[in-house]
Amino acid sequence: MRRVALLLEYDGTRYAGSQYQDNGPSIQAEVEGAIRELTCADARIALAGRTDAGVHALGQVAAFDTEAALAPREFERGLNHFLPEDIAVVEAAEVEASFDPRRDARSRVYRYRIDNRRERAPLSRRRSWQVAKRLDIGAMRDAAVMLVGRHDFAAFAGPYEGSTSRTLRRCDLSARVGRIRVEMEAEAFLPHQVRRTVGALVEVGTGKMTGEAFEELIGNAQTATAGPVAPSCGLYLVSIAYDRPIFGTCQGSGGTI
Amino acid sequence: MRRVALLLEYDGTRYAGSQYQDNGPSIQAEVEGAIRELTCADARIALAGRTDAGVHALGQVAAFDTEAALAPREFERGLNHFLPEDIAVVEAAEVEASFDPRRDARSRVYRYRIDNRRERAPLSRRRSWQVAKRLDIGAMRDAAVMLVGRHDFAAFAGPYEGSTSRTLRRCDLSARVGRIRVEMEAEAFLPHQVRRTVGALVEVGTGKMTGEAFEELIGNAQTATAGPVAPSCGLYLVSIAYDRPIFGTCQGSGGTI
Repeated sequence: MRRVALLLEYDGTRYAGSQYQDNGPSIQAEVEGAIRELTCADARIALAGRTDAGVHALGQVAAFDTEAALAPREFERGLNHFLPEDIAVVEAAEVEASFDPRRDARSRVYRYRIDNRRERAPLSRRRSWQVAKRLDIGAMRDAAVMLVGRHDFAAFAGPYEGSTSRTLRRCDLSARVGRIRVEMEAEAFLPHQVRRTVGALVEVGTGKMTGEAFEELIGNAQTATAGPVAPSCGLYLVSIAYDRPIFGTCQGSGGTI
Repeated sequence: MRRVALLLEYDGTRYAGSQYQDNGPSIQAEVEGAIRELTCADARIALAGRTDAGVHALGQVAAFDTEAALAPREFERGLNHFLPEDIAVVEAAEVEASFDPRRDARSRVYRYRIDNRRERAPLSRRRSWQVAKRLDIGAMRDAAVMLVGRHDFAAFAGPYEGSTSRTLRRCDLSARVGRIRVEMEAEAFLPHQVRRTVGALVEVGTGKMTGEAFEELIGNAQTATAGPVAPSCGLYLVSIAYDRPIFGTCQGSGGTI
């Protein structure tokens, strides 16, 4: 038995989520189906990160066990043959039998994309949150910086049992010609943390929330008070870092977003 | 009677072309339908550039005559209300009665996007040409530079009646992490000129065509010998320039591609 890791890219638009879902297709079901077609055997995949309905990935990581005597390159090509066009194996690699894509992850990078323009943008309509109100980038950036470090992020998460303290390593906001990107890195995130953070940053950008009000939310033990949840179509799981690199491909390098 | 100009962005994926088509929906039919819904009167639009089936636009320009007493901003919002989600009016402006979007155009900018990676890219699958073979960017750039200036571009066009001489003002090739952009500017292009040029540049990039062979095609009066036509999904009409700017919006600024 060998363990194989997959670097996955997907367009989450038509999926109900990464893990098995009762209410629609999932990334997990599609990938397991492709493994079955390729190897003629059932397999169960483990995923590094959970992505919600409509959320995209440039560098999701999956792992599964197989008896199939295929080279990594053959897994790549073979699985891509059976996968639908909105999911791709960017790279396959053989890993140690103990590799756990979720537990072994040292950090996760998510990116959120906003198109800030008066009228909607047809070419990025399922790739970004289209915000018509003019956003104050400076105020948003000042707020984003406050989030970095170890804090109680309860106000930026949905209901969650357990500690809501997390260490945010990075929260970078870049902007050019109407396009804003928020990139966040942490060892682990709370459910909906990125989308709630972006929702609150946009409230700061429109002036609906002051920088002081935003600052007060950090360390606040009340869950889900930070503002609206930004829509899933703007969110991308960019990459997962491990102690040792698993893939040769530079994760998240797909400059798609 | 007033003449109104529209700056249009669209995702060409599901359209058979910009002008009326027998075999499927067109940008023209959708825009004229929206004008009819908004103004309760028929109108005929003129388009600055003809885009083929599947080709996108960030800055197409249309013009039409109307009796409707609406402000430009009302045309924008009203037409966007009636247009499908893959077409948007980025801006509307009142123009002189003599304005002709096609004949008055001083130059056109097209952009072509290639994703050069081993496996397909789900997030840009209808936005770029996905080329798996490794491309020699230096060789492609050297070839691109040779095209600039006034030449007979017959070898880079489909069958065409009339002079095939054109002046190419610019042919820039930029590349980063597996993404290549070719941007071309000219007063006017021949049918399929951008896609045939990109097809030939890719042949140079894979080594199938030498730089010398490419150079020999320039000025060659034989039509359609340059190589394959690059697929339409990678092509974008970025902007049209006029003697005086028509719109406040910076055309093609949508950093979507």
